[in-house]
Amino acid sequence: MNIAIVGLGIIGGSYCKALKAHTAHKVIGLNRTPATAQKALEAGAIDTIGTPESLAEADITILCMYPQACIDFLEQNGQYIRKGSIVTDAAGIKRAICPQMVELSKRFGYIFVGSHPMAGKEKNGFDVSDADLFMGASFIITPCGAPQQAVGTVASLALDIGFGSVKITDPEEHDRMIAFTSQLPHVLACAYVLSPSCPNHRGFSAGSYRDVSRVANINARLWSELFLENREPLIEELQELNHNLNALFDAIKNNDKETLADLLEKGHSVKQRLGE
Amino acid sequence: MNIAIVGLGIIGGSYCKALKAHTAHKVIGLNRTPATAQKALEAGAIDTIGTPESLAEADITILCMYPQACIDFLEQNGQYIRKGSIVTDAAGIKRAICPQMVELSKRFGYIFVGSHPMAGKEKNGFDVSDADLFMGASFIITPCGAPQQAVGTVASLALDIGFGSVKITDPEEHDRMIAFTSQLPHVLACAYVLSPSCPNHRGFSAGSYRDVSRVANINARLWSELFLENREPLIEELQELNHNLNALFDAIKNNDKETLADLLEKGHSVKQRLGE
Repeated sequence: MNIAIVGLGIIGGSYCKALKAHTAHKVIGLNRTPATAQKALEAGAIDTIGTPESLAEADITILCMYPQACIDFLEQNGQYIRKGSIVTDAAGIKRAICPQMVELSKRFGYIFVGSHPMAGKEKNGFDVSDADLFMGASFIITPCGAPQQAVGTVASLALDIGFGSVKITDPEEHDRMIAFTSQLPHVLACAYVLSPSCPNHRGFSAGSYRDVSRVANINARLWSELFLENREPLIEELQELNHNLNALFDAIKNNDKETLADLLEKGHSVKQRLGE
Repeated sequence: MNIAIVGLGIIGGSYCKALKAHTAHKVIGLNRTPATAQKALEAGAIDTIGTPESLAEADITILCMYPQACIDFLEQNGQYIRKGSIVTDAAGIKRAICPQMVELSKRFGYIFVGSHPMAGKEKNGFDVSDADLFMGASFIITPCGAPQQAVGTVASLALDIGFGSVKITDPEEHDRMIAFTSQLPHVLACAYVLSPSCPNHRGFSAGSYRDVSRVANINARLWSELFLENREPLIEELQELNHNLNALFDAIKNNDKETLADLLEKGHSVKQRLGE
């Protein structure tokens, strides 16, 4: 197949490299900044630098841009995409874009399958992209009414390039779960490192500091868009966390060892039951 | 030297194994449950099973028990410890025990040097102890008035068995920093996994879920003691976190992209400046 990757940041770049490493598909790379596309070509991550017009050759087009930028790109360039070909995205939110993405696919005659690769790093850009980024990770698909066959094609490709599992869901469940599994830890990490104690952590810190603070190294522009486009589920998770933190806070403040140990034991048993 | 390890859990067991792996010192192991000491002996982690009376042979005694248990142990057995020998601990809090530990050392004539190895796992017991647990970790010493030479002996031993650095501080700074670097992430992890979304995370989760939730697999009895014995600094850090979470919450709730991006950018720049 010919596969077009639009946006050669960490996710798009990793798609290119993984496709070259694990498949025989031809990879067409498109990027707003030409120098990055040139770098990707020289690195052997793509076979050719594409233009919107060359999307006519692609069997699958994967949009690896900010959520709103995916819609803007398709509004402008959807006309070039071959009818019947597949378009998917990599956006971390789904309710906010899927309805428009479906509408655009109907307007231009291609098939839209929503997807979200559950992988990333606390750094950005093509330079940190990695052929192994997706190894063992979960690949989430929101079919949004796409034919079963197209969903299967996207799922197979994901497994071919290293994803460990595929989860099929709808935009609502996706966004609700992502608010907990991904967005909340990012909010937490930022709140955590804003403590005046943070700059003095060296010599006093180990794994638990490192793990909680890791994703504070955030792309502020991307994540503020993701948080605001998923406001309701994220607010619910923040309220739930606040409730649980308050219960722990009260037990500590009241020197109430029994309640505190009970709460910690509850957390322990949830985590132990889940295994991971 | 003869080194006695009292308490063969994950920390004590790891001390034994690291001493055997990296030094030629003789290791004497003491444990309340005899079967564990026997297991340590059979595993080659200790050279001999000790009794309180055999502490008379030890040049250094390392207490690897719950904070209050260290004091209880010394109250009962301090008489057996050789005068002029060194006693250190591994407790995660210092203000709550150091004054009594110093007093006991004066009563019985040995030298007390407080210490806290900044390493651990989200599991407990001798079975998960590991000769490499301390590799590259920070070793915190609170001298509490001990002679420079004794502090140097403890520091050298720590570096010999794999610690990457030694931090000398006082109980106040230790407890204030540990509240942030270690205790707060443990409180957070427990509060996080208590969300009703947690049991459904599979397929939707990746590194950020894994990292924040990891230490929820907590030893509830140990950590409730540690939290309550370090109440004031921990409450301060919880209030600071609450303040920062509220600021982020408000920005998200008010759809205030500018304030939200500013807060995330602040977190990002703290983390980026620190490098880790």
